[in-house]
Amino acid sequence: MDNNELHCNTMSDIERLIQQSQAYKLVSRQFHPQDTKIQVGNVIIGGKKIVMMAGPCSVENKIQVMETAKAVKKSGAHILRGGAYKPRTSVYSFQGLGEDGLKMLLEAKKQTDLPIVTEIMSPDKVSLVAQYADILQIGCRNMQNYDLLMEVGKIKKPVVLKRGFNSTIKEFLLSAEYIMSQGNDKIILCERGIRTFETMTRNTLDISAVPILKKLSHLPIMVDPSHATGKRDLILPISRAAIAVGADAIMIEVHHHPEQALCDGDQSLTPNEFDEVMKGIKPIIQCMGREM
Amino acid sequence: MDNNELHCNTMSDIERLIQQSQAYKLVSRQFHPQDTKIQVGNVIIGGKKIVMMAGPCSVENKIQVMETAKAVKKSGAHILRGGAYKPRTSVYSFQGLGEDGLKMLLEAKKQTDLPIVTEIMSPDKVSLVAQYADILQIGCRNMQNYDLLMEVGKIKKPVVLKRGFNSTIKEFLLSAEYIMSQGNDKIILCERGIRTFETMTRNTLDISAVPILKKLSHLPIMVDPSHATGKRDLILPISRAAIAVGADAIMIEVHHHPEQALCDGDQSLTPNEFDEVMKGIKPIIQCMGREM
Amino acid sequence: MDNNELHCNTMSDIERLIQQSQAYKLVSRQFHPQDTKIQVGNVIIGGKKIVMMAGPCSVENKIQVMETAKAVKKSGAHILRGGAYKPRTSVYSFQGLGEDGLKMLLEAKKQTDLPIVTEIMSPDKVSLVAQYADILQIGCRNMQNYDLLMEVGKIKKPVVLKRGFNSTIKEFLLSAEYIMSQGNDKIILCERGIRTFETMTRNTLDISAVPILKKLSHLPIMVDPSHATGKRDLILPISRAAIAVGADAIMIEVHHHPEQALCDGDQSLTPNEFDEVMKGIKPIIQCMGREM
Amino acid sequence: MDNNELHCNTMSDIERLIQQSQAYKLVSRQFHPQDTKIQVGNVIIGGKKIVMMAGPCSVENKIQVMETAKAVKKSGAHILRGGAYKPRTSVYSFQGLGEDGLKMLLEAKKQTDLPIVTEIMSPDKVSLVAQYADILQIGCRNMQNYDLLMEVGKIKKPVVLKRGFNSTIKEFLLSAEYIMSQGNDKIILCERGIRTFETMTRNTLDISAVPILKKLSHLPIMVDPSHATGKRDLILPISRAAIAVGADAIMIEVHHHPEQALCDGDQSLTPNEFDEVMKGIKPIIQCMGREM
Repeated sequence: MDNNELHCNTMSDIERLIQQSQAYKLVSRQFHPQDTKIQVGNVIIGGKKIVMMAGPCSVENKIQVMETAKAVKKSGAHILRGGAYKPRTSVYSFQGLGEDGLKMLLEAKKQTDLPIVTEIMSPDKVSLVAQYADILQIGCRNMQNYDLLMEVGKIKKPVVLKRGFNSTIKEFLLSAEYIMSQGNDKIILCERGIRTFETMTRNTLDISAVPILKKLSHLPIMVDPSHATGKRDLILPISRAAIAVGADAIMIEVHHHPEQALCDGDQSLTPNEFDEVMKGIKPIIQCMGREM
Repeated sequence: MDNNELHCNTMSDIERLIQQSQAYKLVSRQFHPQDTKIQVGNVIIGGKKIVMMAGPCSVENKIQVMETAKAVKKSGAHILRGGAYKPRTSVYSFQGLGEDGLKMLLEAKKQTDLPIVTEIMSPDKVSLVAQYADILQIGCRNMQNYDLLMEVGKIKKPVVLKRGFNSTIKEFLLSAEYIMSQGNDKIILCERGIRTFETMTRNTLDISAVPILKKLSHLPIMVDPSHATGKRDLILPISRAAIAVGADAIMIEVHHHPEQALCDGDQSLTPNEFDEVMKGIKPIIQCMGREM
Repeated sequence: MDNNELHCNTMSDIERLIQQSQAYKLVSRQFHPQDTKIQVGNVIIGGKKIVMMAGPCSVENKIQVMETAKAVKKSGAHILRGGAYKPRTSVYSFQGLGEDGLKMLLEAKKQTDLPIVTEIMSPDKVSLVAQYADILQIGCRNMQNYDLLMEVGKIKKPVVLKRGFNSTIKEFLLSAEYIMSQGNDKIILCERGIRTFETMTRNTLDISAVPILKKLSHLPIMVDPSHATGKRDLILPISRAAIAVGADAIMIEVHHHPEQALCDGDQSLTPNEFDEVMKGIKPIIQCMGREM
Repeated sequence: MDNNELHCNTMSDIERLIQQSQAYKLVSRQFHPQDTKIQVGNVIIGGKKIVMMAGPCSVENKIQVMETAKAVKKSGAHILRGGAYKPRTSVYSFQGLGEDGLKMLLEAKKQTDLPIVTEIMSPDKVSLVAQYADILQIGCRNMQNYDLLMEVGKIKKPVVLKRGFNSTIKEFLLSAEYIMSQGNDKIILCERGIRTFETMTRNTLDISAVPILKKLSHLPIMVDPSHATGKRDLILPISRAAIAVGADAIMIEVHHHPEQALCDGDQSLTPNEFDEVMKGIKPIIQCMGREM
């Protein structure tokens, strides 16, 4: 018994609420009972395989991208992440390499055969970024940038939609509905932590969001332990938890020299550490009846 | 990269901070590098076994306690939970059966051989409750009731200390330090969710707290998915996540007729549902090298 | 238009909700339409006068209490605050002087004729503290310490009930109902800030709580800008805002030498600064049709 | 004394932190010690006058805009607000009239001589909206839409920047720095409530943010009690508090028929209610040495 005793909704209340509302039409499981599977290159996201996306926070130079790409490929990652356009709290921080960064990612893709996921920050860059990337990512600060959601809804490429760090699960699904209303149903929902009063972690991973989203929606779910925790030491245990709770994909920041990273060095794994994580999650993946 | 970029501490910062401070002396892993193991009856909490505590939110009558106790025993639970003194937000809600409830728990213990954990709400009841219970529980609202912490610190019985739903991990450890400073080192730390803006769950389980507490402290860690989520459907996936992330024990509310429960019916499992959870977590327990 | 568009309750919804429920019976304005006025010595709390309570966070020694008491009296304060029993996050912090502190407060009362408000932390100390104090204070950590609420409900002395820093307005009123259900209707509700993600202030003052509590309840409302903000510079503007929004009383920490304070030095005013605050709020008090 | 005792920064710590960092260069008071004054038509924002911005949440039709504009003008408002582009949580909600709405605002401006403030949601609409509006507003969801911040930084029109409901004061100032780094120093900072666990109000107004922002920055500060509280009954007391705490401007939603409003009806005042608010804040304005 605790304080919320008077507010408690059962899951069936939530389901009834949604049934009454038309708000989540296209993204809801009632509309589309089967799991949505999204093919990217040879990989299917939302199927039996736990898809691993890994790479640096931001693209810094050719060597960094290439070395990191080769290393994560070797450890078994399926998709290369890397930011060319970086949303930074301060205008005076490194803002990313822009199209040059996209070119470096493409070069790494050619050499490793890993598809690319990269962030898109404004509607007018969608067509440019879509020329290079296999998956477009909408970051947590842009989860309610509706013009951007509409624009990525009009293309055919898969989209990673990150939950805003102060957004409810309901608002998250309503933002996915914006994309899907424009015709694009290739959406990967990514839980990356919400903002709370706890300060030991960068954000608080809302692990319950994974099974709730699975129940309410047919879209595949990813977890980002790097941004959720901001702590290198927590990546392995949180990745295990994410798989055990039912996530379809995991996104992890890896940098060939984290101590020199232009951003997020504290939460980036070295290639060796990433390799340890890949080995450490294997038994849980098998135990959950999934594949690596 | 996200908003907290300027506040981010690495784990080593946290460790340095604690080293400098004397605040967490006794509960810290630096003071006591080995895991603390707590024996209750034949069960060891903090060892290889994942210890399952199960039973009703509140003790309502003899039949309820006995039937639920037998059922959870049969499914493999190790310890019986049940509240005789209930902290209720409203003075007009059912407040528990008091000592009569403790007697019913004791009767159930005799019949099932399950040790008992029950909540204690004020310092002057500690000696009474300790006559009946094997483990005393301090609820989340009392995590900073310092007189109560001091009082349970003076007895020899194990204590479950629940994290306040508004308390930081640091404050949680500092409350455990109150107990341990009085001589009682048999403390089980229980993460049961924190209060956030998300309303689909009763609270937000802070899953990262488990590996952080493991790193900072030698005390065993329990997770309470019933109170954290308030949703029956989430108990199995969250229990799996808790075990995968490194918890030593799980506490689950079970009621022989949840629809008639005087409190927390929405989050209580039926005996059959509890049996399904026990089967559903078994593979993860084995996979983590733990025992059931 | 913002995110909460789907959850928005109008005030009339809230009122309907409460009408249906019996949860806030005695503290509600429907039960008792007139404002409750509480007499303490020659002062009435909840009447036309804005009542000022001031003094040190904790009682440290005779000179500190006496000097501070004389100073706040001279500036126009009506009631002397000071803690003899201190709830501290760490067991190793200064815990207060206990009954010796109460004696020092009583001596200061004799010399200045200021009534005393002091914190009470556990049920078994109620009768002792009530022998010395004119008003008993229940701190924010104990807002849901139900045994303590019941105990202060049985005495005849006024009680300051501080809102828990993670408690809703509803829970706050339900805790007041515990006290009033035992026969004591002399309750002063104190808003002292809630815990949020903002870190520039110690807590976030919920200024809207004042007019909401005024509407829902007949009890007088106090604001504590010292604990809400934790910043000396904010005491004057926040005190003005509190009076403008309809508060009946203000509680401010004053220390004759804040830089030597054993706790809360950063938020304590010097006697001179307190005098400036008293002068600075005077025009707002008059403008609101209240008296100093 | 409360839980945050270990985290408490004094204001001087904050100031030192900022001095060391270059993060808030242009928006900081150290860079520009005098208050910035922004002229819009005949009105100066940030001077002695408390500037009142009022009007409907969204522009719905000619009659609504014109009637509301005439009414708020008559009651003494200085600037007309109204949304033509509406950021809505659901794609299926009314999204605003777009350029048609801007035309209606312009017509109302011609008839009433009130300058117009209206929301801009994406970089590619900046030049269009700037043709109609006197002040551009960046809504709380777009506070970290950096491309949009950069774009409004390049024009010469004043900008209302609303604090994100999940953003810290530091992040708020860093977003203003984005605008100012591009050459536009006509920025009005607007506190409109942050997201907390309290559900009786739509958001929690962070009243302390006003004096903190005044101390840290030279930019004028506005408060939006309509969005902060979501409750009609709270507009007057919160407006009084905002003026008492030092705000330079207030923004209030007014609708000629709130019960028919397409959005935010619950928080919109009728013209008569707005007139009452204007009369009710007058004494506080005078008492603070400001002008109406």
